[in-house]
Amino acid sequence: MVNISLPDGSIRTYDSPVTPHDVAVDISEGFARNVISARFNENIVETSTLLKHDGKLVLYTWRDEEGKKAFWHSSAHILAQALEELYDDVKLWVGPAIENGFYYDVDLGEDTISEKDFRTIENKMLEIARGKHAFKMREVSKADALAFYKDKNEYKVDLIENLEDGTISFCDHSTFTDLCKGGHIPNTGIVKAIKILSVAGAYYKGDENEKQLTRVYGISFPKQKELNEYLELLEEAKKRDHRKLGKELELFTFSQRVGQGLPLWLPKGAALRERLENFLKVAQKKAGYEMVVTPHIGNKDLYVTSGHFAKYGEDSFQPINTPAEGEEFLLKPMNCPHHCEIYNSRPFSYKELPKRYAEFGTVYRYEQSGELHGLTRVRGFTQDDAHIFCTPDQLDAEFKEVIDLVLYVFGSLGFENFTAQVSLRDPENPEKYIGSDENWDKAEQAILNAAKDKGLDYVVETGEAAFYGPKLDFMVKDALGRKWQLGTIQVDYNLPERFDLTYKGSDNELHRPVMIHRAPFGSMERFIAILLEHTGGNFPLWLMPEQAILLSVSEKYEKYAQKVLNLLENDEIRALADNRNETVGKKIREAEINKYPFMIIVGEQEEKDNTITVRQHGGEELGTISVSTFVKIVNERVSNSLKTFK
Amino acid sequence: MVNISLPDGSIRTYDSPVTPHDVAVDISEGFARNVISARFNENIVETSTLLKHDGKLVLYTWRDEEGKKAFWHSSAHILAQALEELYDDVKLWVGPAIENGFYYDVDLGEDTISEKDFRTIENKMLEIARGKHAFKMREVSKADALAFYKDKNEYKVDLIENLEDGTISFCDHSTFTDLCKGGHIPNTGIVKAIKILSVAGAYYKGDENEKQLTRVYGISFPKQKELNEYLELLEEAKKRDHRKLGKELELFTFSQRVGQGLPLWLPKGAALRERLENFLKVAQKKAGYEMVVTPHIGNKDLYVTSGHFAKYGEDSFQPINTPAEGEEFLLKPMNCPHHCEIYNSRPFSYKELPKRYAEFGTVYRYEQSGELHGLTRVRGFTQDDAHIFCTPDQLDAEFKEVIDLVLYVFGSLGFENFTAQVSLRDPENPEKYIGSDENWDKAEQAILNAAKDKGLDYVVETGEAAFYGPKLDFMVKDALGRKWQLGTIQVDYNLPERFDLTYKGSDNELHRPVMIHRAPFGSMERFIAILLEHTGGNFPLWLMPEQAILLSVSEKYEKYAQKVLNLLENDEIRALADNRNETVGKKIREAEINKYPFMIIVGEQEEKDNTITVRQHGGEELGTISVSTFVKIVNERVSNSLKTFK
Repeated sequence: MVNISLPDGSIRTYDSPVTPHDVAVDISEGFARNVISARFNENIVETSTLLKHDGKLVLYTWRDEEGKKAFWHSSAHILAQALEELYDDVKLWVGPAIENGFYYDVDLGEDTISEKDFRTIENKMLEIARGKHAFKMREVSKADALAFYKDKNEYKVDLIENLEDGTISFCDHSTFTDLCKGGHIPNTGIVKAIKILSVAGAYYKGDENEKQLTRVYGISFPKQKELNEYLELLEEAKKRDHRKLGKELELFTFSQRVGQGLPLWLPKGAALRERLENFLKVAQKKAGYEMVVTPHIGNKDLYVTSGHFAKYGEDSFQPINTPAEGEEFLLKPMNCPHHCEIYNSRPFSYKELPKRYAEFGTVYRYEQSGELHGLTRVRGFTQDDAHIFCTPDQLDAEFKEVIDLVLYVFGSLGFENFTAQVSLRDPENPEKYIGSDENWDKAEQAILNAAKDKGLDYVVETGEAAFYGPKLDFMVKDALGRKWQLGTIQVDYNLPERFDLTYKGSDNELHRPVMIHRAPFGSMERFIAILLEHTGGNFPLWLMPEQAILLSVSEKYEKYAQKVLNLLENDEIRALADNRNETVGKKIREAEINKYPFMIIVGEQEEKDNTITVRQHGGEELGTISVSTFVKIVNERVSNSLKTFK
Repeated sequence: MVNISLPDGSIRTYDSPVTPHDVAVDISEGFARNVISARFNENIVETSTLLKHDGKLVLYTWRDEEGKKAFWHSSAHILAQALEELYDDVKLWVGPAIENGFYYDVDLGEDTISEKDFRTIENKMLEIARGKHAFKMREVSKADALAFYKDKNEYKVDLIENLEDGTISFCDHSTFTDLCKGGHIPNTGIVKAIKILSVAGAYYKGDENEKQLTRVYGISFPKQKELNEYLELLEEAKKRDHRKLGKELELFTFSQRVGQGLPLWLPKGAALRERLENFLKVAQKKAGYEMVVTPHIGNKDLYVTSGHFAKYGEDSFQPINTPAEGEEFLLKPMNCPHHCEIYNSRPFSYKELPKRYAEFGTVYRYEQSGELHGLTRVRGFTQDDAHIFCTPDQLDAEFKEVIDLVLYVFGSLGFENFTAQVSLRDPENPEKYIGSDENWDKAEQAILNAAKDKGLDYVVETGEAAFYGPKLDFMVKDALGRKWQLGTIQVDYNLPERFDLTYKGSDNELHRPVMIHRAPFGSMERFIAILLEHTGGNFPLWLMPEQAILLSVSEKYEKYAQKVLNLLENDEIRALADNRNETVGKKIREAEINKYPFMIIVGEQEEKDNTITVRQHGGEELGTISVSTFVKIVNERVSNSLKTFK
C-alpha cells in the first residue's frame, strides 16, 4: 500500500508503487499530458520515478517554476548532446537551468563558438528534440562513473571524485549520457522551440586561475509562439535597459577613475532624483516623519555595537585608519545605527512616541566588480530610509500607515501590479529569534492585520523572518512582466536592545521601544533603474525633469521662446528651449529621443498670435493654443498621475 | 643725516639719530601721546629705539593690530612680574600676545592658581602698571644671559642655548627682567585695565611627554570702559555659543560612538539646513547652475590625478582597502575631482559653456581631536560647492555673477558688514604658478574688475594667490564684531590641466576651459555655526524651522489649534502646536527659549470669534487678529528679510 498525499489535502492509495505520471493520469488524462516534473517529499523526481513509500507529491507543469526548471535542465542535456555531435573535442563540465533558460560550460579544445554558429546548434538540438527520446536516470557506482569519464573528461572526473559512492547517478537520452542528479521532463519531444542566446567565457570552478571554459546560454519553450514572445520581450528589455536609457537621457554616468559601481548623477538625473525625494518628503511630512542628516562614516565602535561590523567583515570596504593610533572608522553600510544614536541623544516619554526619523542616507557596500550592474547593483546608493521608534502597542497603527505610504508611492509611479510577502518566524525554533514571544506575537499580528486590512495580495512565509523581527516585502511586476523586490518594512527587536534604547512609560518605568525599518523605494539608484525599465524613460509627467521643450523655428524667435519659457516657469512647469540654428524637424527628432512629454513649437505665426503649437511625445498634436490653456492641460495631467496621500 | 620715510610717502630728514617717539612728536604732540609701538623697515622696534640709518617708519597706536600686540606683549611682562612677586618658586617660560590678550606659561612649583586668585593678580599688575615703569631693551652676551638664569630657570636656559650670541636681548622694567626680542609700549602706565581670564595646563614645548606648566590668560586695555565692553561681549558670545544654542534649539548633537567631529543633525537642524540649501538652490537655478550628485568616495587614482592624494597624505583619513587586491578608495576631501569627471563624461563645444555644476557635497577631512570645535571645526562637512567650467573670455562675467550670488546670500542672512580680499600672484616669481601669463592677467583683471564693479570694500594681497589661480575671499563681521572668513571664489588652471578637460572652440580646435571653485556659505556646518552666533538663534524669519507655535490655553482647545494649524499650513507658514496640559505661562517661557518668532495663543474667546492672539518673540503683542491677517504679516516680513536675486 502506498499513500500519496496531494497539495489539495487529498490522499490517493495504491496497491503497488506508482510513478508521478501514473498519479497524474489518475487525476486526469489531460492534466497528465501537461505534467513534466514532480516533487516527492523534499526531492525533485522524474515523472517516471517509482514511488515506493507514502509521501507528499506535487506535480508540475510548464506554468510552475519547478516545471520550467526541469524543462530547461533537460534542454541543457540536449545542448550538451548537440555540442558533442557538432564539435570534436568537447569536454562537458556543468549545465544548470537558470532564471531564464539554461547554459552549459564546456571545454571546446581548439574550437570556438560564435554567433554565426548559433543557428547550427539550434537546428541540431531541435533534431535531437524531435526524436522524443526519454530521459532515463540510473544509479552508478563511483568506480563505474570514474571509469566512464576516465581519460576523456577531467572535469567530470573531478566532480565524481568529490561525490560519495552510492549517491551517483547518470541520465541517458538518445545516444547521450551525463552525470546528473535528476529532475527532467519525460522526453526531449516536449521541447519545441530553442534559441541559443549568447556565449561567454567562464572560469572552471569560477576560479580565475583555472582554465577558461566556454559558457553557451540558451532558452527553450514548449511552443514556438512562446519563444517568439520571449524574444520580443528581450528586444524591448534591451531598448529599456536602464544603462542605455540613462546614457541617452543623460541621467547618470560612471567613471573608471571615480570607481566602478559609484554612479555620478548628471544634472538631469540629479533633478529626477531630487523630484522623487521631494515627492516622498512631502508625503512623509504629512505622515509625521522628521528628516535627519547623519555622516557617511562612523567609528568602528558604532558598528561593533550594532553588530554590523561582525556582519560586514572581510568582504566589505575595510576600516579607515587615522593618524590617531587605534582609531578606526567605517563607511556606513546602513543608516540605522546613526538613527539609534539620534534617538539616544535625549530621553523620551511614551507620549512623544512614535518618533519617525527619515533620511535619504547614502550607504556604501562592497560588491565584487563582476556583480556590479548599472544602477541595480552598485557600491554606493542612497536609501529612502526611515526608522520608526514606537511602543509595542503602536505597531499595528504604524504598520498600516507605512503600507499606506508604500501604496501611495507605487500608485504615483505607475506600479499597479504588485504582491506582498509576510515573513514570520519559525514557531518550532523560537531560540533562533531575539525578542519575547509576546512581542513577536504582537508584531506578527500587526503585520498580518495590516496586510489584510489594506487588502494586499500577500503570501505568508513561515520561518522566513529575520532573527531580529518579522517583515513585509513588496514585489512589483514591471511593464515587461519582470518581478522586482521593492519596498520593505521590517520590525526590529535587536537594535533597540543593542543600543539600549528606552522610553518612559505611563508607569514611569523605562521600556524598550520597537523599531521599524522601512524604505518604499528601497534605494534611489535601484528604484530609478527599475522605473526606467518599467516606463522606458517615459516617466509620469510630474516626475519628468523637463516637462516640455520649446523648439524655435529659427533663431529669430528666441526672444518669444524666452517669453513663453518665463510664463511656464511662473506656473512651475519645467521647460527648456532649443534655440539652436537647426531645422524644427531635427529638433523634434532629438526631443523624441530625449522623451520630452511636450514639444512646443514657436515661430512667426505663434509670436504674432501670442500662441504656441504643441505636439506630444509620440506624435499626437494638441494644436495651436494659448500658454494658459497649455498650463491647464499639464496641471490636469499631473494631478491625474499623482495619487492622493492623506 | 638720517632720512625717515613715512607711510604717506613723505620723508623727514634729521641731522642725528632719532627715536620713533621723536618723529611722532615732530608730526604732532597729540599724535605722539598715542603712539605705543613702531616698525622700522622690517623690524618691530621700541618707540625709544634710536634710528641711526635711513629707512621706512610706521608708527602704531592702540587702534592698530601691531599697537595692540605691543600692548598685550608688554602686559605679559607685567603679568610675569606680578606672578614672581606673588608666588615663591615661579619659573617663567614664554608669554606672547595673542589675538585677544596675552598669556604667560609658568612653572609654579608647588603652587597653583585658581579663579579665586585672579583678583589678587590683577591688583598686583595694576599696582605695577601705575608705577609707569619704562620698558628698556638691552643687548646681552650669551654668556651673561646664561649666567643670569643659571640654576634659577632651566626653561630660559634652554631657550638661550638655542639662540646665537649677538642676537640676545633682555627687557627691564621696574625690578623685573625678561629675555625678550622687543616690541613694547613706552611704559607700564599706559595699561589701565586688566582682567585675568583663565588658567589652563600647557605642556612645556607643547610636548605631552614634557612637564605640564600653568598658562595664565589675561587681557588688558588702555581704558576701563574698553575692558567693560570686552567683558560684555564675552558674556554675550558665551550666550550665543553655537554649541550651547545648538543643544537648546535641538539642532544637532554629537555621539562618541559615531565619532568626534561628526555632527548628527536633529530634525530641527536638518530642516534648517534644508531650508538654507533650498534658498541657495533657487538662486543657483536662476543663475544657471545645474545640480549633480556624486559619491563620497573615489578611487585612489582619482586623487592621484587631481593631486589631492599627495596633499592629503599621512595626516588624513587613510585609504579604504577592499577585498580586491590593490584596490583603494579615499573618503573625498573635495568635490572638484568628481565634478571634473562629470565634465569629462562628454565633449563640449564653446557654445555650451559655461557649465556650472553645483552640489551640496559632503566631504571628510581629518582634524586632530584637540582641534575640533562644535560645528566650526569638524571632520565631515557639507560644502555648498559649485564648479564653473568656462572659456577664459567668460571669466569676467562669471566672476561678477558669482559675486552677485554671494552678496545675495549675505544680504538675505543679515550679514551686512563684510570685506573682501583679492589674492594675486607674486609677479616676481612667475615660476611658482601654473597657467600662462596671459591667462593669469586675464583672470586677475577679471577679479579686480568684478570687485570694483560690484563696489566691494576690498584689499589686494599680492603673492597670496594659490599656485593654481587667483582668488577672492569674503570676511564677514558678526553682530559681536568678530570676523569670519565666509565665501570664496577661486580660479583654477590646475585641475583642467590634470584632468585634461577640453572644449571645442569656434576655431574647431580643442581648448582648455578655466575652472572656478566657489562656495558662498563655505560649509553648511560652519555657516550655521556662524549664523547661530551672529543671530543668537533668532534666524531671519524665512529661515526659522518653525515660524510660529500655537499655545492652546488648555487641552479643550486642541481641536481649534489644529484647525488654525491647517490654515497656516495651507499658506505655507511653518508652525506647530503645544497642546500639552501645561499653563500658557510655562508654554510661553519655553517658546521664548526655543526662539519661536510668533506665539499664537488660542483659548475660549479665540475659538468663539475664530481669531488668534499673537505675541512676538521678545514679548511684543500683535493683539487678537484673524488668521488671514497674521498670514499677511508673516509673508510681508519674510519678503522684507529676503533680498531679491535676479
